[in-house]
Amino acid sequence: MQANRLDHITSFEITPAEIVNNRIVQITLSNNSNGVPVDIATAVQMLAIMAFAMTGVIAVSSRGIDLFSACVLGTITALGGGTIRDVILGVPVFWSIDLNYVWASLAAALLAFIGKPLFDRQHLFRLMLYLDGFGAALFAVQASNKVWDLGFGIPVAPVMLGVVTAIGGGLIRDVLSGHPTLLMNRDLYAIPVLLGCLLYVLLVALIPEHRAVSAIVCISLIFGFRSAVIHWNLSVPHWLITKPKND
Amino acid sequence: MQANRLDHITSFEITPAEIVNNRIVQITLSNNSNGVPVDIATAVQMLAIMAFAMTGVIAVSSRGIDLFSACVLGTITALGGGTIRDVILGVPVFWSIDLNYVWASLAAALLAFIGKPLFDRQHLFRLMLYLDGFGAALFAVQASNKVWDLGFGIPVAPVMLGVVTAIGGGLIRDVLSGHPTLLMNRDLYAIPVLLGCLLYVLLVALIPEHRAVSAIVCISLIFGFRSAVIHWNLSVPHWLITKPKND
Amino acid sequence: MQANRLDHITSFEITPAEIVNNRIVQITLSNNSNGVPVDIATAVQMLAIMAFAMTGVIAVSSRGIDLFSACVLGTITALGGGTIRDVILGVPVFWSIDLNYVWASLAAALLAFIGKPLFDRQHLFRLMLYLDGFGAALFAVQASNKVWDLGFGIPVAPVMLGVVTAIGGGLIRDVLSGHPTLLMNRDLYAIPVLLGCLLYVLLVALIPEHRAVSAIVCISLIFGFRSAVIHWNLSVPHWLITKPKND
Repeated sequence: MQANRLDHITSFEITPAEIVNNRIVQITLSNNSNGVPVDIATAVQMLAIMAFAMTGVIAVSSRGIDLFSACVLGTITALGGGTIRDVILGVPVFWSIDLNYVWASLAAALLAFIGKPLFDRQHLFRLMLYLDGFGAALFAVQASNKVWDLGFGIPVAPVMLGVVTAIGGGLIRDVLSGHPTLLMNRDLYAIPVLLGCLLYVLLVALIPEHRAVSAIVCISLIFGFRSAVIHWNLSVPHWLITKPKND
Repeated sequence: MQANRLDHITSFEITPAEIVNNRIVQITLSNNSNGVPVDIATAVQMLAIMAFAMTGVIAVSSRGIDLFSACVLGTITALGGGTIRDVILGVPVFWSIDLNYVWASLAAALLAFIGKPLFDRQHLFRLMLYLDGFGAALFAVQASNKVWDLGFGIPVAPVMLGVVTAIGGGLIRDVLSGHPTLLMNRDLYAIPVLLGCLLYVLLVALIPEHRAVSAIVCISLIFGFRSAVIHWNLSVPHWLITKPKND
Repeated sequence: MQANRLDHITSFEITPAEIVNNRIVQITLSNNSNGVPVDIATAVQMLAIMAFAMTGVIAVSSRGIDLFSACVLGTITALGGGTIRDVILGVPVFWSIDLNYVWASLAAALLAFIGKPLFDRQHLFRLMLYLDGFGAALFAVQASNKVWDLGFGIPVAPVMLGVVTAIGGGLIRDVLSGHPTLLMNRDLYAIPVLLGCLLYVLLVALIPEHRAVSAIVCISLIFGFRSAVIHWNLSVPHWLITKPKND
């Protein structure tokens, strides 16, 4: 079945419908195999992608951007990481197969642009941060799972591309908006994602028959770690940071 | 014949020669179907790509760059947007099939580097801005047309990738040269392109039998809008911009 | 099973075994055809990629980055250029086929992070600069060779993608870490690489039967030029730079 699936995804002789079906199966794999109905899984994903887009807009809107730039930067934040992943994998980009990702991103960016004054209230913005953390957890583990299924660069690439999927969109947004990227600050965003993806790949290698459980455990761990970071305002400990040169 | 062409582009079993022929047909599609001889169409495209490269060099040359960087940044401005589009589409990058795009970009970058004092004269620089606006209009609509023909993410992707093709090269140039990108200023560059691509996709969906006319209408509209922006020095209206936070 | 996996992923009409052989032959071509055993060739490559990763980490570590960011930026410096090249070529990215590149990069980044105080000593850092210059020479000529073998955009693309392979990773690192890119300073890094790739493509076109010799000559020339730049602290001459506008 493994070989059969790869066949469809990577040879380009099949009909579009086949690709679509195939891809949707793959994207929601961790959910389906767990018995959760696809519509709930899809709803969760759309919510997560919308949180990505909204935090993306809010991150840049304090500097006065126009509606168009808000939509572009929000959509890039939401879809950029997965796009880099798919381009490196050499498979069709995920949003070209299910356009709902694009619609959800655009709607969320628009919403964040219009509702900006609301998000200035601390508690709504915090809710958004938690949703964004959940999105990062969900998409990172899904990406690791997808890369593993494609047999691409096992065992390193599933971890690398899991992290890329979670943080890539935010990196492009920061670069395009002239903001320092998260690689240069002490925010604990990428490290929980890295640890979660590492654990997931380890679990898939050791107990391949319990993938769904492994996925849920790793998503929960990343989200829990990230929630703790948001709640207690944690940052990277000093001994893990190089000393700036005094010159 | 349409279906037949798409077949070849998206299956990877054909010989290189077939791809080349196929691609050239596709690139000049909007012109050919209109009965304009290919050589004039090609000349117009080369002029537009050269305008892209020259404005690219002029945009960065005020800060003292060397000949090599001028050629790199000029070429990236000219070819970058289309390259991102083709990588996302998963088709061969356009300039690898017709190297004249590369030669034209390099020649234009060199010309702009040498003739920089000339471009400091206001009216020559303005001519360049108009040519650049025409290039953006032409390549955006061509890109929308190409993406539509490939059946890729209709109806959203043709609009998205039309905009990416027009502004992508400039974004990479700004990022590499440490300049704020056009997403962060109030210049009306991307919005005319967006509206034109939106209209084109709408027209292709509604009156598919008049593609050539639709293309000409949309290119004219984008170029007209952009010309007005250059002529009257217009910028994004205030009500479309978020208020910068005072903190 | 390895071959089987590649089969599915790369199936562009050729048999898997052919691609695999092809790729491995190609990567080590300049060495193999010269009669040097593959293990020495591989060791040289790994050393070069490690030098890339280490200079990448050292370049950013003076500003206080954490272990995770060091690994990410080091790996991107080492693998980024080749990844852009392979994505543009439309072939599987090189590190997904030989994961030793990733392991070597990660190990080198970790080493540079831990041993940072050592690299503050001038002579060790200089050794690293020379190794990095050798890596740039080696990977640029290998990339030109690979692009030529694929018949991709001859004769321009082999030169362009040779330069991209050598400097692409450093460009992404600088952009992500908020550092001015080498395109905006007067360091002679890319120009030796450009001249070497130009010469290599010229030699391959004129005397295709002596590729290995041509490769060694060009690698030596780039490395020699780069060594002179490091030793005498050379920079781009004034007449090759645009005058900054005084405004």
